[in-house]
Amino acid sequence: MTDRPQNPSAEDSLIARYFRPLATDPGAFDLGDDAAVLKALGDDIVVTTDAIVEGVHFMAGDPPDTVGRKALRVNLSDLAAKGATPAGFVLTLALREADDAWLTLFARGLGSDAGLFGCPLLGGDTVSTPGPLMISIAAFGRVPADKMVHRNGAKPGDRVVVTGTIGDAALGLDILKGGAVAAALADDAAATATLVGRYRVPQPRNALAQAVRDHASAAMDVSDGLAGDLAKLCAASGVSAAIDAPGIPLSAAAARLLSQGAIGIETMVSGGDDYEILCTMSENRFEAFARAAGLAEVAVTSIGTVIAGASAPKFLDAQGNQIALKRLSYSHF
Amino acid sequence: MTDRPQNPSAEDSLIARYFRPLATDPGAFDLGDDAAVLKALGDDIVVTTDAIVEGVHFMAGDPPDTVGRKALRVNLSDLAAKGATPAGFVLTLALREADDAWLTLFARGLGSDAGLFGCPLLGGDTVSTPGPLMISIAAFGRVPADKMVHRNGAKPGDRVVVTGTIGDAALGLDILKGGAVAAALADDAAATATLVGRYRVPQPRNALAQAVRDHASAAMDVSDGLAGDLAKLCAASGVSAAIDAPGIPLSAAAARLLSQGAIGIETMVSGGDDYEILCTMSENRFEAFARAAGLAEVAVTSIGTVIAGASAPKFLDAQGNQIALKRLSYSHF
Repeated sequence: MTDRPQNPSAEDSLIARYFRPLATDPGAFDLGDDAAVLKALGDDIVVTTDAIVEGVHFMAGDPPDTVGRKALRVNLSDLAAKGATPAGFVLTLALREADDAWLTLFARGLGSDAGLFGCPLLGGDTVSTPGPLMISIAAFGRVPADKMVHRNGAKPGDRVVVTGTIGDAALGLDILKGGAVAAALADDAAATATLVGRYRVPQPRNALAQAVRDHASAAMDVSDGLAGDLAKLCAASGVSAAIDAPGIPLSAAAARLLSQGAIGIETMVSGGDDYEILCTMSENRFEAFARAAGLAEVAVTSIGTVIAGASAPKFLDAQGNQIALKRLSYSHF
Repeated sequence: MTDRPQNPSAEDSLIARYFRPLATDPGAFDLGDDAAVLKALGDDIVVTTDAIVEGVHFMAGDPPDTVGRKALRVNLSDLAAKGATPAGFVLTLALREADDAWLTLFARGLGSDAGLFGCPLLGGDTVSTPGPLMISIAAFGRVPADKMVHRNGAKPGDRVVVTGTIGDAALGLDILKGGAVAAALADDAAATATLVGRYRVPQPRNALAQAVRDHASAAMDVSDGLAGDLAKLCAASGVSAAIDAPGIPLSAAAARLLSQGAIGIETMVSGGDDYEILCTMSENRFEAFARAAGLAEVAVTSIGTVIAGASAPKFLDAQGNQIALKRLSYSHF
């Protein structure tokens, strides 16, 4: 070998070109080391990890910037529900090929959200796969010591509260798959775009993290469907819940589809990908929580009550009759 | 829906059955929450992430317990090279199917090493994929504030030091692929097993983490091949290096293959998967480092010297002539 400039591998070039600009934290060392440093600053570090897979959590044809944004946002949503302030993330990217156009847009979407949510890239690994694209992110947040909000603190008498609207993402996915919703909204391009957008780019409620920490007795994000996730929260807390199904907040498009009979309530509460916060709090906390949510410009809705018992949460119709749900949530296996 | 016991999803059951026993840290909350808590205890948190992919980092036929062990060990190796003490990890597991026999053994190997290295499971995500199995781990360690060992501190005059032996894993992979090494060792089942074992289950040098922190000017682990990784360390430090190729530590099997001409030195220094520590230190530190390594029962070998310059590190033969290397390391793209 003659003396020659040191030739970084294609993998290193890929990381430098697309991802170094996202590594704005000094602890990321410009992605030039083998590890990053995260300073706790006296807080607890909250750690969460969520992966998204092509064909499951996003579609092959989804715009790459939305894929990058969703990959981070599903993790930011967990941090928000735990009451944590974003501190950074690491990325594993499994690619079939190093497609410049795709990577440019993917990194742009990811970087835009990393800036928007104050959650810089700290490190990562890029691997080749013959299979579907997969993006796995582990995200870190900070909470004051021992103040992470848990799933297991709900108490009988607490209100059950959700942010935003429920079920839109499931409808968006149905549209992308050419299902019944696509047909029902064939004449409504705006509603179609809104619902698809809710599937592709969830709105994590990080602006509410402190209010959740201050007021919620238990919280989690709704990722696998409201019914199933509420069942998990109740099981962890050793309680049950009664939900007023007509009180579940719906977008205008979802409400119209429901009133037309194009979809049933089950689609809304057992579909996944909402990434809204589901939390419980004592009655006397709700007003302050709602006020904080108002300041953060996040809609919050009280949808029911925590009750004693070990049975699955009940969803009740306008007449107070229990609605039969065949499935509670999405499961990978 | 009639009242019925809350029915966890198959995914939750999978996590509870196989992975809850690995979540021994109180901050993992028995994997019953959406996030874990990692306490820094006044230290810096060191964060690293590495994924392994079926057909790339492990073979479809590899014993599942070795896959679990390798997935964690490649990350433990980064922590060791950065001078950090393991604190925990999160796991993303992409599976084609929930195969009980595979998962039982995988979790057993992973859990065994989590215990051995004091690195408990803090959380994870399990997703389905039609593609190859993939295991992505983000691992966390602790170092005293600002004491992480970097790639960029090597100085002209420093010794270049490696732990263990180099190249065995590349030979093991060649055997699994039925290459030239397999044929050359057809009569030597013990050597074959040793080399395959080095590919499947690397030996991260966490016992040396404190010695690296105390003495090394720069360090990284050798994952993509000694030549390429040394080039990265030199580039980060703005230096070059002269390596005495005959002084590179080899296992008995590798030395025999080399002396027979069955393989060349390039196979050894540009193959990947060594997971040994490569570090530099000033001359007057080496004796104390070697003594600490002796106490930790890890072999360490001085293989060359850091020199000024920006050219790629030189590998010199016994006559002091530069060895031509066609490639420096493994790259995914």
